[in-house]
Amino acid sequence: MQFPSPVSLQFISELINATIVGSTNTLVTGINEIHKVEKGDLVFVDHPKYYDKCINSEASFIIINQPVDVPADKALLVVDHPFDAYCKIVNHFRPFEPSNKMKSDSSQVGEDTIVYPNVFIGNHVTIGKNTIIYPNVTIMDHCIIGDNVVIQSGSVIGSNGFYYNTKKNREVWYKKMPDCGRVIIQDDVEIGACCTIDRGVSHDTVIGKGTKLDNQVHIGHDTIVGRNCLMAAQVAIAGAATLKDGVTLWGQVGVNKTLTIGENAVIFAQSGVGGDLEGNKVYFGSPVQDAKIKQRELVWIKRIPELWDKVMKK
Amino acid sequence: MQFPSPVSLQFISELINATIVGSTNTLVTGINEIHKVEKGDLVFVDHPKYYDKCINSEASFIIINQPVDVPADKALLVVDHPFDAYCKIVNHFRPFEPSNKMKSDSSQVGEDTIVYPNVFIGNHVTIGKNTIIYPNVTIMDHCIIGDNVVIQSGSVIGSNGFYYNTKKNREVWYKKMPDCGRVIIQDDVEIGACCTIDRGVSHDTVIGKGTKLDNQVHIGHDTIVGRNCLMAAQVAIAGAATLKDGVTLWGQVGVNKTLTIGENAVIFAQSGVGGDLEGNKVYFGSPVQDAKIKQRELVWIKRIPELWDKVMKK
Amino acid sequence: MQFPSPVSLQFISELINATIVGSTNTLVTGINEIHKVEKGDLVFVDHPKYYDKCINSEASFIIINQPVDVPADKALLVVDHPFDAYCKIVNHFRPFEPSNKMKSDSSQVGEDTIVYPNVFIGNHVTIGKNTIIYPNVTIMDHCIIGDNVVIQSGSVIGSNGFYYNTKKNREVWYKKMPDCGRVIIQDDVEIGACCTIDRGVSHDTVIGKGTKLDNQVHIGHDTIVGRNCLMAAQVAIAGAATLKDGVTLWGQVGVNKTLTIGENAVIFAQSGVGGDLEGNKVYFGSPVQDAKIKQRELVWIKRIPELWDKVMKK
Repeated sequence: MQFPSPVSLQFISELINATIVGSTNTLVTGINEIHKVEKGDLVFVDHPKYYDKCINSEASFIIINQPVDVPADKALLVVDHPFDAYCKIVNHFRPFEPSNKMKSDSSQVGEDTIVYPNVFIGNHVTIGKNTIIYPNVTIMDHCIIGDNVVIQSGSVIGSNGFYYNTKKNREVWYKKMPDCGRVIIQDDVEIGACCTIDRGVSHDTVIGKGTKLDNQVHIGHDTIVGRNCLMAAQVAIAGAATLKDGVTLWGQVGVNKTLTIGENAVIFAQSGVGGDLEGNKVYFGSPVQDAKIKQRELVWIKRIPELWDKVMKK
Repeated sequence: MQFPSPVSLQFISELINATIVGSTNTLVTGINEIHKVEKGDLVFVDHPKYYDKCINSEASFIIINQPVDVPADKALLVVDHPFDAYCKIVNHFRPFEPSNKMKSDSSQVGEDTIVYPNVFIGNHVTIGKNTIIYPNVTIMDHCIIGDNVVIQSGSVIGSNGFYYNTKKNREVWYKKMPDCGRVIIQDDVEIGACCTIDRGVSHDTVIGKGTKLDNQVHIGHDTIVGRNCLMAAQVAIAGAATLKDGVTLWGQVGVNKTLTIGENAVIFAQSGVGGDLEGNKVYFGSPVQDAKIKQRELVWIKRIPELWDKVMKK
Repeated sequence: MQFPSPVSLQFISELINATIVGSTNTLVTGINEIHKVEKGDLVFVDHPKYYDKCINSEASFIIINQPVDVPADKALLVVDHPFDAYCKIVNHFRPFEPSNKMKSDSSQVGEDTIVYPNVFIGNHVTIGKNTIIYPNVTIMDHCIIGDNVVIQSGSVIGSNGFYYNTKKNREVWYKKMPDCGRVIIQDDVEIGACCTIDRGVSHDTVIGKGTKLDNQVHIGHDTIVGRNCLMAAQVAIAGAATLKDGVTLWGQVGVNKTLTIGENAVIFAQSGVGGDLEGNKVYFGSPVQDAKIKQRELVWIKRIPELWDKVMKK
């Protein structure tokens, strides 16, 4: 999340009661999670295993639980509990703001857009022109929805991500990351019934122009879907994944987090994608493989009995 | 879709600005998509690859982008853009009619039927007797729901199908087929929570008498489900499939479009059905096979190391 | 279900017009289904195949369609149609009570709990403190929801289970078991968007303290989920399963009914669990196996062509 305007490092250090290590005379532009961090951003780390990754990321400011060496153009904010400090900053800049109206006064709906009855529109939502929102849709805070978009009934846009700070040696194993990201649905996108699109935990979840989702599709937090993608029913994509333009996922495909699927890749139904995939190829299987290789394997399996006979009956 | 009453071919040709080739002195009874077309119907085709299939189908009238030979009992309607002409006809006979009421005045609810709060009922819906519609259900236009039906919360009946006219060489890759079909839910059907049943794109989606669906089941457009079928949670069936009577699909089964599953077939959980299946058999796997054959294959796979040892260690 | 207070066996026998075989001088404390029955409970059985299992269960009273030998501390209630008798008792003690309000007067919401607009709360529901219920959630009758719980939009808590009395030789193949159980959601549980959690058919469905569910998760009737479990998107668990504490199910995992998954087991995405699993292990596959064994099998399959060459080309 970018802050509304840059703030001094001093302000942040006072907010979270931190000791600054390094240059103090700079401005902080936002806060992000390690997968999405940019120059000028704050990030947090609380385990030595990830110290190097954070310090060498694009982040300019690292909230950390002990002083370490830091490059000259960066600064540390040392606190006992970096995760709690992260939450404090997020809640300061994007506080939880429940709404008791069906359409918040802080939201806007464009011309010629049809909003059916029983649609909930939260705070700071923008909906474009010539869009149709069917009954019983929920659009949570900070979503941006473009022109000529269709969202069918029962879908939820901007739900909170499934993302927890996990430590099994404390009483509360899973602490929810507060969500400060948004959902951005670009023009000409169509979303089926009973889909769920989580808002970004720290960045944005984006559905690219012209992309079409069938019913019961799930898109995780901070995932970026390109233009003209197709997803058939019951596809699920975990958090912070990237789908380039023109990707087609057939029914019930599952996609793991923080990976990239290349342009115009086609994934057959029920496949499970665990890692990056090159574009312009066709894939199948759980775990997924090149579709032709997978199909040949299915044939090879059928030949085992013949092999067995040949080898064992000699 | 059948028209409310037959119209002259002349009327249609003027509506879409087409040149008639063949006999003009006939009545058009409806319009349909190639998988569902009947005698008296219009159909459209815009790619030479499908010309023969369309001309040899049951359709009496073919909207096409060039003149071709046609049997004496059929006629062509030649236009530059057959898909756009199809859309124009559908929108003429079944125009989009958004409703701003929770229950449209054009809909009827039978005696002793319980409609919980927060249920949306669109235009031209008929609901039978002694039926229960739980909260937060959405029933869109033209659905017909029988007697003794149960629809649990969050389900969406009559959403638009996932069906696009696709051309990757134009600016807009995917153009939505306008939906003119209905959903027909016969007597004694029970539908779980958060299910989605798409209306027919050009025909009807039918759920047969006595069939029971668990939660989060998806049924695609124009699919015909027989009587006394069972579908466990998270089953997904694509468009224009046919399930005969007494079919059982266990949890998370996926079924491809335009195929037929025979009577009393049983498909084990997580299977993927890609083509027609004979009835009265048990199936398993993704891709699906006869369950016994699949189970034997799983055993054969476990014997590969033994084979390897025997062959390689000699 | 436990009755509000114990009733005489005489009262029950009159309600269902049964003949008592065995000791009559006892009190009946509740009614249950065979998987969940306890001492003092009624159970029913209508097929000789299951007579022994019922008579040897914890049940004190067996509704049965013919007299059989019974231990001295138990009694039979002989009727022609045990399933109908079961339904009559359930409907007597927990009658169907539709509500036409968005929040029933018989329900309670704790301090500092936020209920967004468009949430349906049925009869006899209890919601604890500091809980957030997002828009378009449905909470059906008798649910008990703890403190610090989050339920995201579109979710349905307390839907009826997918559980039918099946006889294919009568006109109505599937007769719905009337549900008399509850859903109990303990403190600190978080439930994603568009989840469905069925109430117990005869007992309770329980989600243990600190457990977190992603979007579009389905939990069947009478299933007991332990503490600090994690379920990623589109997990489905059938009825009457038991998950011990700390179990992790990744996306799209399916779990069969009436089985037990041990403490801290981890199941990788898209796996299918058909039977009991030991705790503290990692699993993968459909059908599921120890993850390491499954991964080795995937490697072995890739070696079949090499084996083939060696054996066939000699």
